[in-house]
Amino acid sequence: MLNYNKTLPNQLTNWAFSETAFKPLLLGKCESIMSLGNGYMGLRSVTEEPYIGETRNLFVNGTFNKFDENEVTELPNAADVTRFDMLVDGRRFSLETGKVEEYSRTLDLRHAELIRSFVWENEAGKRVRFSFRRFVSLDNTHVIGMKMEVTPLNEGIQFSVGSGINAQLTNTGSQHFHEGEKRIFDKKYMQLEQTTTESKVHFIIHASHRLSLNGESLEIAPKMDIHRRKVALSYTLDIPAGETFTFEKMSTVHTSRDLAFEGQELSVMKEAALAQAKEADRQGYDALFELHKQAWANVWDRYHIEIDSEQEFDKLALRFATYHLVVMTPAHDRRMAIGAKGLSGEGYKGHSFWDTEIFILPFYIYSRPEIARSLLEYRYLGLEGARRKAQENGFKGAMYPWEQAWPTDGEVTPVWGEVDVVTGLQTKIWSGFIEQHITSDVAYAVWHYYKATGDQDFMERYGYEILFDTATFWASRLEWDNAKGRYHINEVIGPDEYKEHVDNNAFTNYMAHFNMELAIQYYNELQSERPEILERLEESLKLQESYTAWTSKINQIYLPQPNEDNIVPQDDTYLTLEQIDLTKYKNQEKVGSLFREYSLDQVNKLQVSKQADIMMLFFLLENKFTPEVKKANYDYYEPKTLHDSSLSLSTHSILAGDFGDSDLAYQLFRKATEIDLGPNMHSSDAGIHSASIGGIWECVVMGFAGLRMLDGKLHLNPSLPQAWKQLKFPIYWQGVHLNVHLTHSDVLITSSSDEPLALTIKGNDVLFHKELHLPL
Amino acid sequence: MLNYNKTLPNQLTNWAFSETAFKPLLLGKCESIMSLGNGYMGLRSVTEEPYIGETRNLFVNGTFNKFDENEVTELPNAADVTRFDMLVDGRRFSLETGKVEEYSRTLDLRHAELIRSFVWENEAGKRVRFSFRRFVSLDNTHVIGMKMEVTPLNEGIQFSVGSGINAQLTNTGSQHFHEGEKRIFDKKYMQLEQTTTESKVHFIIHASHRLSLNGESLEIAPKMDIHRRKVALSYTLDIPAGETFTFEKMSTVHTSRDLAFEGQELSVMKEAALAQAKEADRQGYDALFELHKQAWANVWDRYHIEIDSEQEFDKLALRFATYHLVVMTPAHDRRMAIGAKGLSGEGYKGHSFWDTEIFILPFYIYSRPEIARSLLEYRYLGLEGARRKAQENGFKGAMYPWEQAWPTDGEVTPVWGEVDVVTGLQTKIWSGFIEQHITSDVAYAVWHYYKATGDQDFMERYGYEILFDTATFWASRLEWDNAKGRYHINEVIGPDEYKEHVDNNAFTNYMAHFNMELAIQYYNELQSERPEILERLEESLKLQESYTAWTSKINQIYLPQPNEDNIVPQDDTYLTLEQIDLTKYKNQEKVGSLFREYSLDQVNKLQVSKQADIMMLFFLLENKFTPEVKKANYDYYEPKTLHDSSLSLSTHSILAGDFGDSDLAYQLFRKATEIDLGPNMHSSDAGIHSASIGGIWECVVMGFAGLRMLDGKLHLNPSLPQAWKQLKFPIYWQGVHLNVHLTHSDVLITSSSDEPLALTIKGNDVLFHKELHLPL
Repeated sequence: MLNYNKTLPNQLTNWAFSETAFKPLLLGKCESIMSLGNGYMGLRSVTEEPYIGETRNLFVNGTFNKFDENEVTELPNAADVTRFDMLVDGRRFSLETGKVEEYSRTLDLRHAELIRSFVWENEAGKRVRFSFRRFVSLDNTHVIGMKMEVTPLNEGIQFSVGSGINAQLTNTGSQHFHEGEKRIFDKKYMQLEQTTTESKVHFIIHASHRLSLNGESLEIAPKMDIHRRKVALSYTLDIPAGETFTFEKMSTVHTSRDLAFEGQELSVMKEAALAQAKEADRQGYDALFELHKQAWANVWDRYHIEIDSEQEFDKLALRFATYHLVVMTPAHDRRMAIGAKGLSGEGYKGHSFWDTEIFILPFYIYSRPEIARSLLEYRYLGLEGARRKAQENGFKGAMYPWEQAWPTDGEVTPVWGEVDVVTGLQTKIWSGFIEQHITSDVAYAVWHYYKATGDQDFMERYGYEILFDTATFWASRLEWDNAKGRYHINEVIGPDEYKEHVDNNAFTNYMAHFNMELAIQYYNELQSERPEILERLEESLKLQESYTAWTSKINQIYLPQPNEDNIVPQDDTYLTLEQIDLTKYKNQEKVGSLFREYSLDQVNKLQVSKQADIMMLFFLLENKFTPEVKKANYDYYEPKTLHDSSLSLSTHSILAGDFGDSDLAYQLFRKATEIDLGPNMHSSDAGIHSASIGGIWECVVMGFAGLRMLDGKLHLNPSLPQAWKQLKFPIYWQGVHLNVHLTHSDVLITSSSDEPLALTIKGNDVLFHKELHLPL
Repeated sequence: MLNYNKTLPNQLTNWAFSETAFKPLLLGKCESIMSLGNGYMGLRSVTEEPYIGETRNLFVNGTFNKFDENEVTELPNAADVTRFDMLVDGRRFSLETGKVEEYSRTLDLRHAELIRSFVWENEAGKRVRFSFRRFVSLDNTHVIGMKMEVTPLNEGIQFSVGSGINAQLTNTGSQHFHEGEKRIFDKKYMQLEQTTTESKVHFIIHASHRLSLNGESLEIAPKMDIHRRKVALSYTLDIPAGETFTFEKMSTVHTSRDLAFEGQELSVMKEAALAQAKEADRQGYDALFELHKQAWANVWDRYHIEIDSEQEFDKLALRFATYHLVVMTPAHDRRMAIGAKGLSGEGYKGHSFWDTEIFILPFYIYSRPEIARSLLEYRYLGLEGARRKAQENGFKGAMYPWEQAWPTDGEVTPVWGEVDVVTGLQTKIWSGFIEQHITSDVAYAVWHYYKATGDQDFMERYGYEILFDTATFWASRLEWDNAKGRYHINEVIGPDEYKEHVDNNAFTNYMAHFNMELAIQYYNELQSERPEILERLEESLKLQESYTAWTSKINQIYLPQPNEDNIVPQDDTYLTLEQIDLTKYKNQEKVGSLFREYSLDQVNKLQVSKQADIMMLFFLLENKFTPEVKKANYDYYEPKTLHDSSLSLSTHSILAGDFGDSDLAYQLFRKATEIDLGPNMHSSDAGIHSASIGGIWECVVMGFAGLRMLDGKLHLNPSLPQAWKQLKFPIYWQGVHLNVHLTHSDVLITSSSDEPLALTIKGNDVLFHKELHLPL
């Protein structure tokens, strides 16, 4: 179905993957995993000619809108510029008709270009070669370039192509835009101006075409069409056999969320956008693509990870992950963050979850700290909504929303989900109410960033405030249990979302405790060293009062301990629940298949887990547990875990490494790479899995290389898979740029700094200047 | 492309038409002209399996909603129940793949059933016979029945079918519904409850399936799905070769606009709707279809028109017209009317125009006067909006909206139309502001109905009020021209919409004059005979003051007279405008093609007409003009008329009869029947042409039979086409049921009444009892 390295030119070996036969049932998968973007916007890689089952999406980061009071805000599906309506000799061109040969659709990761080509033979025996290329510029993030070439091979054809800007699309039925205004300048530059219905974000989209025959520019008077929510130009011409018609389309996208237009009149944006559209048209595909290619060359220079593996696929998988990390991340604007599906689909509505802090942030902390900081500042801006949520729930401090959109929106988790097979109603989604560990996940990420970067400026402006106010939330959240004489946290969902309304989820309790611990520690430090910071925060955070609450409660928080079998109970009741045979559901092809037979209410009463829960705790607070405890819990919980969440496999892979099973770690890594790149035809329909993609990098760097920050120190505990000969990767640590080179027998580290650097390798502390070379 | 009588069983000769090869570019046409309905709702005849280019529409009459303040209200596209997602051996079934034989899609007009069947061979050589049947019940207007049969012919197949209620659809991008609630009862009855966003109309749609194999009922556990705006059940089974899988789907549609639920709690409607859905499922397709067939048998009994023509197509065309007249007309509710596209497409948004009063009402006046009355009561309810429009424009009385939706909405004409090829902007639609003749068209229709039916009750309750208040509008609308010493009506659009902002459009002036004349006449009559009626209306209508205005102004209204060449100037400037060669645009295949080269502003300056204008005047006020004048004007204006409006050809046909050219009349009639049934592939995409369909009946009864009401008397002036041997039709006149039988040499009329009846035949007054038989 999907091919790696076949049909590719040599320079793309391990740099691209292809669909080599047109499969209507694979539309969604290819649209998602081949999606293009630049952090500013994301474009699903839908084919130019339309098919039933396609999902034509263009998302611009941060442009959230709410359809009505009963829905939650989401990234609106902006107008489409990618559809071409084509007629060959008067009949609609479709790959479902006629014959198709030499088909391939390829995502070139190196140059971030989508390339599709084939020879199509119509029912009259006319053979035509088509080729399509497309990019979303990383150089000028407002630009989408497209280029089509059509060459009749044996007989001439009459060819028509209509293309424009189509705003008739919705988000699965919800329309986020007023109709807006449409216009065509000079019979060439199409313009659509639209405003979102509730958030009142203005969009301006332009598109224009350049036509040529055998490289000679062609002037054909277009048919102009303006209809409801739509503007288009169409052209008809005869293409003789052997001649090549080239059709380029340059589109530009601007919105009033763009920082460049902050506080400006709409007219300023309109003028700038039109000028840019004309300039893009003047330059054309090839020139714009050159600039885009250069921008991507810089990306690959910076994120240069080398794997020397018997399994070529491993290299590709890591590049795939890196590609999507770049494409999904709004590095340009701290008011924006990373959606659970990036910008590659409507799934999860563009909302940010703990996926960012726990699965993606480490990549940026160690590769581009300034982007990690921007993502954490997004959480700082989110304090307003987090405080509102705490207040609405009767708590103090900052209670982060399970799902966050525009930073000040607060909680945006939808309330109703898929069908309940027992009642025939929609299942209630409780996460927005009781999946509360997100608050300590954010605090953990702040600490992780600070410790790895030493960014004191960040802490003073934003970090301490987050740590303190999240701790205050937890202090107010704790419930005193008289019988046991300790604080409980009841009625929550932990990471394992198949256990709702549980008491004392171990992950939640430990992380809340850790969050308060951090607050106390930094409060004490600041009090002695920088009391003026505490004074500044005193009024808004009532710090003294909070500190009293933290310190008076922290030691009485119930932290579940390993039982006689070394098992840490996931929550108060998990170990007592009924166990069932899960064999038929434990299959990546059948994600979620349990729910054809059980309702969530029923699953709540079984020892069945969706994903890593105790394992997550072991990963984040690794030095609180011994390898023996980790192994015992892995053996207990993993067989009960369906990995129905894409957050599960990478964590399990890392944990397997932690208790020393590197074969298992590698197997699980391979499985994790298949969440998007594997054979399951529909798992990526609603978009790629950002956390899983971050998890791929984590498996490699935090898993196989064993790179961790522990108690503020850099640790390396390499354990390369058998299939790998070596692994090279760059990281930043405390502002220093390191290159790490690992083999099964050696570690070589070079540093950009002249200062000595301390780290722990395989449990041994070492200190080095410029270069370290050690046997393992 | 379309076939008439081929491939049909004998009993459907001239009762059905078929598409005999699957043509993706014909999707829109077949969906519209084969659309089903019952006046309560209309369902486009889209295929079960989806195709690119389809438009899946379900409209429920009167449920108007406005997306936002910048759009006008429209009939919302309700959730779809017709789509089946089918897999054969795991691949999506589509007629664009594999081979198709014995294909036909037929609209059986007699039984109002849509029938589609074919043998499909997949790429593996498996041959499967499919047959689909569908009706929208005329017996229980809330019910949609569907039935599919699947028979593998040479090898067994694995077959999956998913079907449900899908509310992800929009009106060309505008979403009119809140998401609503979805539920599945008993793993069988799917329910969707939705409310429109602005008008707050509640919809409840149910659907359920019945499965059987070779007639034996089949129980297969469905996969249940509830997603955003969507609920569905799907089934998978193996069908052995030679066995037939039957899949029935019963759907029901209810809304809070239903009179049955007026003033009731929503729960009452919910309970009733669910009960009805269960009952429909219990009965099944065949039983429900029997009841529907019986209801249609009654229709054909009542509207029994017989044409004995050499051209078989003529019979079919008239049945086609009658079918659609029934399907589009909300006979059940006077708050609703007939849209310009009926209920067959999104075109014109379900709004009512003068099309109803002038092109469709005559059919009902003479065939079912109670429906004609209901349609006029709709205009009575519209007085509120008409008065508001008058006031907003600085006039008195009732100024009817050019487009009317929910009766009290007032003017709902959109303001922006298609592209202006010169400016690249949308063309402004002026009709809502200045196409004012609609007001006298309504008055004319009231008078026409009254004279033909003698319905005094209607006049007292509604009719006089309309006549008086429309006359008052005109009296306030007239503009005194000092230089000429007469009243002008400046700055209007007449029936010919290619002439905007004209002064003294002859049709508008004459009809305004006529409207005031009617008011004066009835005022005078009532003053002497029924003064209490005037007293009742005095307060609200300020009748005395109005009467003074009517009488003081009427004789000074400028009524353009024929010039030395017998030409009545269409307006003050038409005859002075530039003339151009229209040959290449005068082609029904190219409706609107002029606008690829000219903007409307430019067309305004040419002697080019969209449609009948002076001809309309001759038709409505026929005895004000001589046949010579009619002929001269026909010869002058017709060559300048593009018939770009579907209101044009039928009027020209009738006029050709009026000045004695019955060959031309017949030719034009045939052209008129081709507006929907002819070869133009796209002219019906947005829906059938209601006025044209009414016009087909008008051509036959008012044209060829020459049946007219003139000065309150019934006239018959037959002139059958050469191709026709005889014509029989029933009419109502003053409550008496007449059967008219015409040949080229004779007229035979029978009457249901014992009273003597007066009429004029070919200019001669006759009086008869029970039966009249005359040579012509």
